[in-house]
Amino acid sequence: MEFIAENPSLEDFRKLIELKEVDKLNDLLTEMHSADIAELMDKLEPEEADYIFSIMDPDNSAEVLLELDEDLRESILSNLSPEEIADELDELSSDDAADIISELPQNIKHEVIQEIEDEDFAKDVIELLRYDHQTAGGLMAKEFIKVNENWPVVDCTKEMRHQAQNVKKVHAIYVVDDNDKLVGRLSLRSLLTTNLRSPVKDVYIKDVKSVKVDTEDVEVARIMQKYDLEAIPVLDELGTLVGIVTIDDIVDVIKDEADKDYQMAAGISQDVEADDTIFQLTKARFPWLFLALLGSLVVVKVSGSFDAALDKFPVLFFFTPLIAAMAGNVGVQSSAIIVQGLANNSLSGSLFNRLLKEFSLSLMNGMVLALLLMLSSYFLIGADFTVAITVSIALISVIVIASLIGTFVPITLNKYGIDPALATGPFITTSNDILGILIYFSIAKLILGF
Amino acid sequence: MEFIAENPSLEDFRKLIELKEVDKLNDLLTEMHSADIAELMDKLEPEEADYIFSIMDPDNSAEVLLELDEDLRESILSNLSPEEIADELDELSSDDAADIISELPQNIKHEVIQEIEDEDFAKDVIELLRYDHQTAGGLMAKEFIKVNENWPVVDCTKEMRHQAQNVKKVHAIYVVDDNDKLVGRLSLRSLLTTNLRSPVKDVYIKDVKSVKVDTEDVEVARIMQKYDLEAIPVLDELGTLVGIVTIDDIVDVIKDEADKDYQMAAGISQDVEADDTIFQLTKARFPWLFLALLGSLVVVKVSGSFDAALDKFPVLFFFTPLIAAMAGNVGVQSSAIIVQGLANNSLSGSLFNRLLKEFSLSLMNGMVLALLLMLSSYFLIGADFTVAITVSIALISVIVIASLIGTFVPITLNKYGIDPALATGPFITTSNDILGILIYFSIAKLILGF
Repeated sequence: MEFIAENPSLEDFRKLIELKEVDKLNDLLTEMHSADIAELMDKLEPEEADYIFSIMDPDNSAEVLLELDEDLRESILSNLSPEEIADELDELSSDDAADIISELPQNIKHEVIQEIEDEDFAKDVIELLRYDHQTAGGLMAKEFIKVNENWPVVDCTKEMRHQAQNVKKVHAIYVVDDNDKLVGRLSLRSLLTTNLRSPVKDVYIKDVKSVKVDTEDVEVARIMQKYDLEAIPVLDELGTLVGIVTIDDIVDVIKDEADKDYQMAAGISQDVEADDTIFQLTKARFPWLFLALLGSLVVVKVSGSFDAALDKFPVLFFFTPLIAAMAGNVGVQSSAIIVQGLANNSLSGSLFNRLLKEFSLSLMNGMVLALLLMLSSYFLIGADFTVAITVSIALISVIVIASLIGTFVPITLNKYGIDPALATGPFITTSNDILGILIYFSIAKLILGF
Repeated sequence: MEFIAENPSLEDFRKLIELKEVDKLNDLLTEMHSADIAELMDKLEPEEADYIFSIMDPDNSAEVLLELDEDLRESILSNLSPEEIADELDELSSDDAADIISELPQNIKHEVIQEIEDEDFAKDVIELLRYDHQTAGGLMAKEFIKVNENWPVVDCTKEMRHQAQNVKKVHAIYVVDDNDKLVGRLSLRSLLTTNLRSPVKDVYIKDVKSVKVDTEDVEVARIMQKYDLEAIPVLDELGTLVGIVTIDDIVDVIKDEADKDYQMAAGISQDVEADDTIFQLTKARFPWLFLALLGSLVVVKVSGSFDAALDKFPVLFFFTPLIAAMAGNVGVQSSAIIVQGLANNSLSGSLFNRLLKEFSLSLMNGMVLALLLMLSSYFLIGADFTVAITVSIALISVIVIASLIGTFVPITLNKYGIDPALATGPFITTSNDILGILIYFSIAKLILGF
């Protein structure tokens, strides 16, 4: 098989799978990182991916399982018996195992847990399954290194070496008292630089940030970012150290949160990916379109109610999409800045001051844009001068009001515990369309008197 | 001063500053984390923040400086002499020092560098300043621990302890050959579990991911996320180990990138925050509004060119904002999914297949929405049946075409090295408005024959 280069292509793998070249495939797979194998499997056809998984060394397959796309993982797990699943989980850390179990169908969950051989591990997994996904408890792992404050460092190292065998990555060493209450941490740096004969009591750092099991995931992310932490200990209601949350989970939380805001701004109501099925994508996109259609029907109704203008000033109706578009754009700009400010916890000052600032800002932008609109509608579109003036005055009003709504709505949503990102999507665009058209025609009626 | 509780409020600090209670303030500040002090200073008036900074223990002030909002940092540094700035930098790691220097006015940069006492540190900083901000070189720190593969582990530990004194956080220990070329890494875990008498050669892990100094920051972030790394070594053109990028910098890159996409989708053209000045905010928001206005003027012109319809079918003009809004919403939905797929590197299949999928998807959504529109415009708005049919057919066409554009544009932008997120903002909304209205009236003309 001379065509297998240093970096085998997707097609190379396809060919090897077709020819069932188990040995050659295994040679290639053992050289690959589990994340790369998962990426390969995601790109292959489901049956090909199944085949790859079936021939893989059991020591590696668990890690690969973890990295797979959720849909493919589900399909691969559905081919395994509870015992086989439990064997895979044994290779993982408790939080990863709990994540995978939580995705399983309800009736299989219990069977899988019963098949886990290591009893301590099974207990850890059961404990983790109790916590809400979006809390520190749901994110934490049970694998960490802890030492008692009353031990001498020299005893600790032995104990740490023993504990480290069960921990994939050592982030920090936590110090507890005799009641398992967290009292501080030993840094790895100090471990490298400290005299091993000193007692733990003398060398540990007392100032240690921690979270509770029920702290929300975004709050854990905020704390870890603020204090530049790579791991944070998690305490139960009594202050007992029960787990740690590590930075890799937090990176996922940050990315998911950003993706969610972005999708909400784009009017996508569920967490979807480009490679999901047409049905899933349709379902995620229809709801907002439906609401936008309803809102737009109100706009149609509002326009229609000003049909008296049709006789004398039909040109007014050419401008309705412009007014609606500007209202939408301005509203989204304002609310996006507020949503980011809320997410970063960087919003200061009172609501009144913020609205005042937004008012000045939008008035400035509005006046420049209105001047441009006046000139171009008079000279380029050939509208009457009075119509040009009317349209421009309406534009300023619409811009100012849309930007105030864009500021007010997300702050208010947030105050009542609703995700403010909701305000950046079709919701605000559609409301601003309705209001914009209403203001536009009302001002026109006032000035032109139709 | 009995009013100082466990958690002093902003007002408590204000009062203490006003009374110039240096000792009491210092007692409070020494108990606080630098990130909390920075947060406090960001909330105070500039003069109050200056005062806090001036009384702070010099050992802590450098860390606080680093955590401050850029504007406030600039204002505080402008009150310091180059020598004083250099003294602050001495307390920081090389990458943080380089970041702060790069923000200084050109004429002060050199003076500050010359005032740095530690020559090795100054050299490191100068080297880091050479690299582009948005590359691995621009993100990396020069502080890391490396050992020679030919040393025995027992010698290493001594050397490591020595090196660890200059490193704030130990992420990994890198193994180099006699030419300083990276050959592998020693995990901290293995260091805890390995017999110290073994030679480094026998225990180090050969499989180590690395990046080049000129690797783009988003690519570094992608690699570190994919392989769950907390630090990655950076090599120069010759393969020499020159620095490491750590996960805390990557968290910032991920957040900045997400913020950028979000702001672009919201039509904000510069990285601004809610607390920036009105002028900065106006500048960041005006450009897209200006473009949206231009695009909307084209929409007005297009509407106007179909004024023949005004006599017989004026109701058609009530629907233009609806058509424009639906085209905009659908286009943004499509492009947002593509932009996220591109960002996550999860987009598979050919452009043709993707367009085909989008076609079926939008056709499904479009047909349901068009049916709803037909019914409501006939029964609720009271439009003619032929008009209701016309508007509905136009809606399907507009939805399908807008979604194809929303798919095609970001993929094409990305192909030519332009940020695809550009396609989710006012750019695609405005183009879809124009095209939508054109299609709408063309179909109406075809069916109704005005």
